Amino acid sequence: MTGALPAFTTPARNRAMVLARRPGGNPEPGDFALSEGPVPVPGDGEILVRNLYLSADPVQRGWAANPALMPIGAAMRALAVGVVIDSRAPGMAAGDVVYGMLGWQDYALAARADLLSHSPSPRAPLPAYAGVLGMPGVTAWLALHDLAPPLAGRTVLVSTAAGSVGSVVGQIARQAGAHVLGLTGSEGKVAQCTERFGYHQAFDYHRHDLAEVLERACPGGFDLYFDNVGGAISDMVLRMMAKNGRIIQCGTAATASWSPPPTGLRPEREILMRTLTWSGFVIFDHADRFGEATERLTDLLLDGKLSHEAHVETGIERVPEVLAEMLAGRNQGKTLIWIGD
Amino acid sequence: MTGALPAFTTPARNRAMVLARRPGGNPEPGDFALSEGPVPVPGDGEILVRNLYLSADPVQRGWAANPALMPIGAAMRALAVGVVIDSRAPGMAAGDVVYGMLGWQDYALAARADLLSHSPSPRAPLPAYAGVLGMPGVTAWLALHDLAPPLAGRTVLVSTAAGSVGSVVGQIARQAGAHVLGLTGSEGKVAQCTERFGYHQAFDYHRHDLAEVLERACPGGFDLYFDNVGGAISDMVLRMMAKNGRIIQCGTAATASWSPPPTGLRPEREILMRTLTWSGFVIFDHADRFGEATERLTDLLLDGKLSHEAHVETGIERVPEVLAEMLAGRNQGKTLIWIGD
Repeated sequence: MTGALPAFTTPARNRAMVLARRPGGNPEPGDFALSEGPVPVPGDGEILVRNLYLSADPVQRGWAANPALMPIGAAMRALAVGVVIDSRAPGMAAGDVVYGMLGWQDYALAARADLLSHSPSPRAPLPAYAGVLGMPGVTAWLALHDLAPPLAGRTVLVSTAAGSVGSVVGQIARQAGAHVLGLTGSEGKVAQCTERFGYHQAFDYHRHDLAEVLERACPGGFDLYFDNVGGAISDMVLRMMAKNGRIIQCGTAATASWSPPPTGLRPEREILMRTLTWSGFVIFDHADRFGEATERLTDLLLDGKLSHEAHVETGIERVPEVLAEMLAGRNQGKTLIWIGD
Repeated sequence: MTGALPAFTTPARNRAMVLARRPGGNPEPGDFALSEGPVPVPGDGEILVRNLYLSADPVQRGWAANPALMPIGAAMRALAVGVVIDSRAPGMAAGDVVYGMLGWQDYALAARADLLSHSPSPRAPLPAYAGVLGMPGVTAWLALHDLAPPLAGRTVLVSTAAGSVGSVVGQIARQAGAHVLGLTGSEGKVAQCTERFGYHQAFDYHRHDLAEVLERACPGGFDLYFDNVGGAISDMVLRMMAKNGRIIQCGTAATASWSPPPTGLRPEREILMRTLTWSGFVIFDHADRFGEATERLTDLLLDGKLSHEAHVETGIERVPEVLAEMLAGRNQGKTLIWIGD
């Protein structure tokens, strides 16, 4: 395992995948268009970054729907890993690896506030900075740190268990001594969960007997539900929680649109009778803790205690498809798009 | 204010209000019947209590529906305040005032585990032991202690604000420096909230413009929602919570039956985006902390920092009606039934 920089080109023009129209629900490839412009020049306090690995993440659905965050015609707001090629910011120099809000484009201007991590001498392979060491891994790490009960001897259920967040939750919870079950969307992902991501058992949430299977697998109920989906699965799991159980709400992938507001089973009686604690976690509230968490996760990764999987595809023109595939649940683990050639 | 014992009779037979049939939803007077039997004799480790004030509480709806807790033909499971008239339990003596699970009956046999508080020399009037010093007051005290954020400068909304729990929440939150708003069921209770129970403002939740009124009263949203009702009001308030707000679920009075399971607006997106923490609180999980909380509340009461209101009616035959009135929201504060004559 190495943190050496890959060879990359520095094209004369900046290509960007821009938002061409406001998506109705999940963003589709037709909502985006490729545009080209000059390479930008950093001002005082700014760096110029050559983006190498573009990230596609569920949170982009919300960004694309929000005119305040994402004007039509601008490069799609996105996380990426890149290399600083020019710096007018103190403490940052050409060659540094950065990860943050760099957009779906070849070059980005960024200030320190746009970055989630900054590695003058990266210890890990670059794709990891957008996966186990990036937003997904740090989300798993901090959400468990802040909101989970002590995990030794507890029962944990994770939805989107093979996803970029869930795969890290499974591994951390297993190492902490929990009994960890996962829910995921295909038999292939079920196998990945148990073989690579620390799960004792995993189940496809499409199976019709899911409630019975979970009941048999964990008759005492769950002490922690780490939930990335919400929806009908959440209604079911709420009724299978152990007394004093906790739910971490980290995503709502099961619901494609919140307008009109969807309905479900009322939760308040379960919250009361089982004395649950149900909390939301948004990683962007914790930007100041990102660097420290990345360092801890890097230690685990280099010690062989964390499995890192990134599927790398090639070509900026592919990013809208990769996002659409992911939102449809057809990805496995983290997919990144290499654009350094 | 005095803790002196009132004069009471010791009838030769034990009257009990028994559950005659399983209620369909809210228990009605026709679900109960008066029966009579011999005065019981305490065994080793037991006390014989002359019940003086019977309590009617929302939690009895759940007890009456549960065959494991409440067999047909037995004295209705209920809280009461009484006086020990015979003791075969160490540390308890005739004349001691006790409060606990003593049932709707003239006499109760009890062990220490059935008691929530035990006062060899009571400092407060006896009805207070079933109200501000009893289950409602201790619920307010411990739930706020365990689950509320620091209250100084925060905005707090309380449902059933004039009820036996809500009226204490309002007073404690106000004294802690919060801005406290209440929801209650009539204009008379609205006045009581602001005049006696510490609320800055209170609103009748039947008004059609409730959302607009709350929005104007607290444009920044609520840091804490102390909820005793759930239902449609809860759906509305969830969407008015401040970032990092907390919800304490202490009752679900708005929903008369959970079979079939009722539906409502999905909460998971609000929990996530507003990073809420929604917790259940059940006082019976905290029996070991009851005595200490009662002492702290007694200090506040005797210092004039806590308003205590108990409506006292007379006659064991009245208790089913008092419970039905309360479940219909037609009570004001705590109603007790004196049966000592």
